[in-house]
Amino acid sequence: MIPSPTILLLGSGNVAWHLSAALSAKGCRFVGVYSRTVRHAEALAERLRCPVVDDLERAPKDADVYLICTSDDAIAPVSALLPENDGVTVHVSGAAAIDAIDKKHRRQGVIYPLQTFNKNNSPLLMGGFPVFVEAATPSDTDALTTFAHLFSDTVIPLKGEQRKILHIAAVFACNFTNFMYGLAAELMQENGLDFQLLLPLIRETATRIENSDNPMSLQTGPAVRNDLETIRKHLELLQSEPKLLGIYQILTQSIREHA
Amino acid sequence: MIPSPTILLLGSGNVAWHLSAALSAKGCRFVGVYSRTVRHAEALAERLRCPVVDDLERAPKDADVYLICTSDDAIAPVSALLPENDGVTVHVSGAAAIDAIDKKHRRQGVIYPLQTFNKNNSPLLMGGFPVFVEAATPSDTDALTTFAHLFSDTVIPLKGEQRKILHIAAVFACNFTNFMYGLAAELMQENGLDFQLLLPLIRETATRIENSDNPMSLQTGPAVRNDLETIRKHLELLQSEPKLLGIYQILTQSIREHA
Repeated sequence: MIPSPTILLLGSGNVAWHLSAALSAKGCRFVGVYSRTVRHAEALAERLRCPVVDDLERAPKDADVYLICTSDDAIAPVSALLPENDGVTVHVSGAAAIDAIDKKHRRQGVIYPLQTFNKNNSPLLMGGFPVFVEAATPSDTDALTTFAHLFSDTVIPLKGEQRKILHIAAVFACNFTNFMYGLAAELMQENGLDFQLLLPLIRETATRIENSDNPMSLQTGPAVRNDLETIRKHLELLQSEPKLLGIYQILTQSIREHA
Repeated sequence: MIPSPTILLLGSGNVAWHLSAALSAKGCRFVGVYSRTVRHAEALAERLRCPVVDDLERAPKDADVYLICTSDDAIAPVSALLPENDGVTVHVSGAAAIDAIDKKHRRQGVIYPLQTFNKNNSPLLMGGFPVFVEAATPSDTDALTTFAHLFSDTVIPLKGEQRKILHIAAVFACNFTNFMYGLAAELMQENGLDFQLLLPLIRETATRIENSDNPMSLQTGPAVRNDLETIRKHLELLQSEPKLLGIYQILTQSIREHA
């Protein structure tokens, strides 16, 4: 892969937004942006100083990388519309197989950044998270490794089956964790307590696992202590919060079985 | 409360370990350590350069603070054994009421540090987490506020009912969150993947909520996107992991209902 490859970007969501910013900062040139949401494509095209691609079937055929950052279910139809080309056609999904990309594209690949992206957040520190690559041939694996090093210091070749496991682990470690934060925040706010008070606790919980091989060994709280009296009091207080109650029960039970 | 109060410590667990270290560093003098686990009491007494109290009924009566850091169910029996005294008898529990302390102690109080403590971790940065105090009289509320300022910059008077809500919120934000980390780690390790790869994702998930009023607005992942195809694939892969499967299902369902 040449040092500053040219890129056609497909998709305009959170991942497209952050990866394209990082690649642009590294000197990559974007030859076009395609998105089913035209307004988003226009915003991204303006930022990347490149044209919007309205009609995918007439997209430029000479880009080095066709970077599909759409939702998983759009990978197949979008890649089917994309003309055959000499570049590498890659998607960035943890859950989709490499062959979600239409088979007319000979050079297929996956670049999966293990990170959470949100447009509303400031640019992420690129380099600070691992990226997993997969390609149909060893030479394309090398090419994608070089490419991914533009925005990450840690690039690891990984087959689809293991990437899917990684993706589920990320759902637990990020999506479910954020949901726990959200439930705690709602409970606090309903009771006139400022959610920000929880931030030092949240920070410490996330930080202290960095020195541990096994987060389970750091488990604290009433469930792991099998403190039935405290659990009883919590369940009583949560009677008016059926959603929290159900989650409290299953997680407490699971932690107790684990301990 | 005098600038460097004298303290009798009851209990030798994680909270006792960290709070006594912080208070000792601030010049407090410990007049004794009592614990049902004699070995732990001896270790703490050595560190705090004070005697072990074997027989609680003969404990010194002239300490300024009787600091009960036991498990919740030991607060009542331990405080019942403790002789009447002129100091303030306080517990540090989020879930226990102030009157869990035996009623013979006229000056009762609670000092609840909203943080997670583990002996295996290095000393926490004291000052960096909020502490909630409750006492039976305004003058003791003031005294405990002054005392808690020895190890925290943020000391807030709070009644027991709200403290219990705070404690449940902390279970979600800390204990359940750590369990999510633990489940992710086990899944990774079973599949030959290094748990450390998840750390940048975990760090970002915890950090980005600091700039947000509402973590729910930052929710990402297949559940909030209602990406049924990815959820289906995850459920299929989790068939061999019944424990993860049940938790995945209830949390995914709850996030979808929320969105």
